[in-house]
Amino acid sequence: MDYKYSNVLSHIKRSEIRELLKWTRKPGLISFGGGLPDSTLFPLKEISKITDEVLTKKGFVALQYGPTQGEPEMITALCNHMEEFGDIAKPEQVCVVSSSQQGLDLLSMLFLDDNSPIILEMPSYLGAIQVFGRCNANMIGIPMDNEGMDLDHLIKTLDELKNNGEKPRFIYTIPDFQNPSGITMSLERRKKLIKIAQERNIPILEDSPYRELRYVGEVRPSIWSLASGKGVIMLKTFSKILFPGMRIGWIVGDEEVIDKLVVIKQSVDLCTPSFNQYILAEYITQGFMKQTVVKAIECYAPKLNAMLDCMEKYMPEGTKWSKPEGGMFLWLELPNHVDTKDIFMSAIEHNVAYVIGSPFYYNGKGSNTMRLSYSFPSIEQIEIGIKRLAKMLKEII
Amino acid sequence: MDYKYSNVLSHIKRSEIRELLKWTRKPGLISFGGGLPDSTLFPLKEISKITDEVLTKKGFVALQYGPTQGEPEMITALCNHMEEFGDIAKPEQVCVVSSSQQGLDLLSMLFLDDNSPIILEMPSYLGAIQVFGRCNANMIGIPMDNEGMDLDHLIKTLDELKNNGEKPRFIYTIPDFQNPSGITMSLERRKKLIKIAQERNIPILEDSPYRELRYVGEVRPSIWSLASGKGVIMLKTFSKILFPGMRIGWIVGDEEVIDKLVVIKQSVDLCTPSFNQYILAEYITQGFMKQTVVKAIECYAPKLNAMLDCMEKYMPEGTKWSKPEGGMFLWLELPNHVDTKDIFMSAIEHNVAYVIGSPFYYNGKGSNTMRLSYSFPSIEQIEIGIKRLAKMLKEII
Repeated sequence: MDYKYSNVLSHIKRSEIRELLKWTRKPGLISFGGGLPDSTLFPLKEISKITDEVLTKKGFVALQYGPTQGEPEMITALCNHMEEFGDIAKPEQVCVVSSSQQGLDLLSMLFLDDNSPIILEMPSYLGAIQVFGRCNANMIGIPMDNEGMDLDHLIKTLDELKNNGEKPRFIYTIPDFQNPSGITMSLERRKKLIKIAQERNIPILEDSPYRELRYVGEVRPSIWSLASGKGVIMLKTFSKILFPGMRIGWIVGDEEVIDKLVVIKQSVDLCTPSFNQYILAEYITQGFMKQTVVKAIECYAPKLNAMLDCMEKYMPEGTKWSKPEGGMFLWLELPNHVDTKDIFMSAIEHNVAYVIGSPFYYNGKGSNTMRLSYSFPSIEQIEIGIKRLAKMLKEII
Repeated sequence: MDYKYSNVLSHIKRSEIRELLKWTRKPGLISFGGGLPDSTLFPLKEISKITDEVLTKKGFVALQYGPTQGEPEMITALCNHMEEFGDIAKPEQVCVVSSSQQGLDLLSMLFLDDNSPIILEMPSYLGAIQVFGRCNANMIGIPMDNEGMDLDHLIKTLDELKNNGEKPRFIYTIPDFQNPSGITMSLERRKKLIKIAQERNIPILEDSPYRELRYVGEVRPSIWSLASGKGVIMLKTFSKILFPGMRIGWIVGDEEVIDKLVVIKQSVDLCTPSFNQYILAEYITQGFMKQTVVKAIECYAPKLNAMLDCMEKYMPEGTKWSKPEGGMFLWLELPNHVDTKDIFMSAIEHNVAYVIGSPFYYNGKGSNTMRLSYSFPSIEQIEIGIKRLAKMLKEII
């Protein structure tokens, strides 16, 4: 059969990283690759007990079809969960999604036509770049410094677009412990970004998977809460603070936006698994989630410290890296002449792996960068792994 | 905020049925609405036990991210499950999806550009019509008789398209106990359809959620198996034979097609919940699934009989209905002047509900039709409900 495929295939990129990560199965190798949470944190016994309770008490409902927007019990639990972390939302402002990646998918379908301009940080989350690319969006990257997006650059870009009669459909940002850079947007920048966006009537898409995972420094309010929800759509997930295996995320936004997302979601999967929603709703309602976040912070904070210490100790001159205050990632920049893709197999030979930086740039830049995740390996592995990486880099640079 | 939305919103239709189903919450009302499986069939204890085993033995993997194509254990289990029902597929021909609705979503993205022609039965599954509509496909409906799609009409349509230099991207069919008509395609038609499609190099998309649920008559081989998989893509799900609450389906197709679907699926949700996959893989591997199907047939066969008997006894003249041999639905046609949407609230007053027929027609036809689902109500409720419906129709026709 000679299949005739759609144009989507010409826009979408196969994840290079997923291909490279196949090499990390080598025995003895230490991987700073995928952004996996530490599975020793998974509350297996609690989930098993709660699943049994859910099946016993409401199994007939939990295994049936559910509402597209999400189970009312789950939505209530999510509102309560958010409130604990400073974000206020009404139930009609929430839509449960089958992973925050699905949230990006739905929002892309809602807002993007062929060639629609959108603003994103540079570098940015590759899963977002993949779905924006699939929709053939016109991605426009804004560079970052230690306080987040360069807003002067943003204003200049918006002005240029305006002169061409164009306006971005949204501004996509990951303000807390950004993936991949680890950078957190300062309070001042958040406020200024809201002002710019509201003045120009551009929605902000705040992707916030890591916000609860702060290890040092002062908490910054979410853009959603600073703007009292006005013109902001926030994406949340349990994949990082709890576990990814149930694929539960949620979108917070204007009632109008949620209402339209629900129609698109009907066509996408009818509803998110009720089973998974009832289990996590119960997990939150029984008060486990707060403790889970505390434990995650206790686990990851020393790992970040260990990695930063080792970087300081072992990394050769000519390299520089971010100093994140939370999240899961550290961003390493090598001298311009080094291509992290070219030296990837050499790292594998040294029994250490990372994620190449270029897929985080929609325009193929960043060939001298890499992302290092410290969430999954143990502290001992972090020490050995960074030593190996530094040794390899010294030979090459 | 004045949001600027994409063109998708102008193509996609809000499900009228979901809106109407809200009325069915009225106490005492008997609903022949949504295609819900009978929840008394749900194997709550087995699922609880298996979940505990999965979490104890492999919780660290089951709650982590998984491969986009699906967990290898799950894919093996699916191949074994299919083999029990006469369908042979290799693991590389299978992609696990988060509900067969997601399968339709992925396949639409893979094959459909703006205005791409596609062939579908008339009437057809409204979830498919919704996603094809979202992609702005040029839907071309082929009428059916008791043996399925009218193939002379199909050939004529394909010839006309060819004369305009066009070819459909695929032929979408639900050959077994079609939703909504209940019609099953005859063996001869299946073979002829394959011949037509192969000669003209058009893929067949075989949506097969009900095939295992045959109550009378002889099993017809799937189009997939008749064509030895050549040029056929099959969509499967556990939503009807087991339960919908875990949202697990799968696509079977050429390795080339699966490979491309996986890339699109990365952008859509990264992966289907590993948790749900491990539980269902274990459910199949421990041998429960075959028994589940037997029990479902034992439950639904007498319900179908009861409904057919009551239709015969109570329905007024001028109505006609399908005589399905399996599945969950019966299709009722009223005289042309009756609009089942207009009389819907009257049915609610009579404490009975159905699904209006027009959403199953992409072109708004079928206003005199309705779908009756017999899977969820009890036999007693079926008898009372059909009496109520017949009484109401007698008053109106």
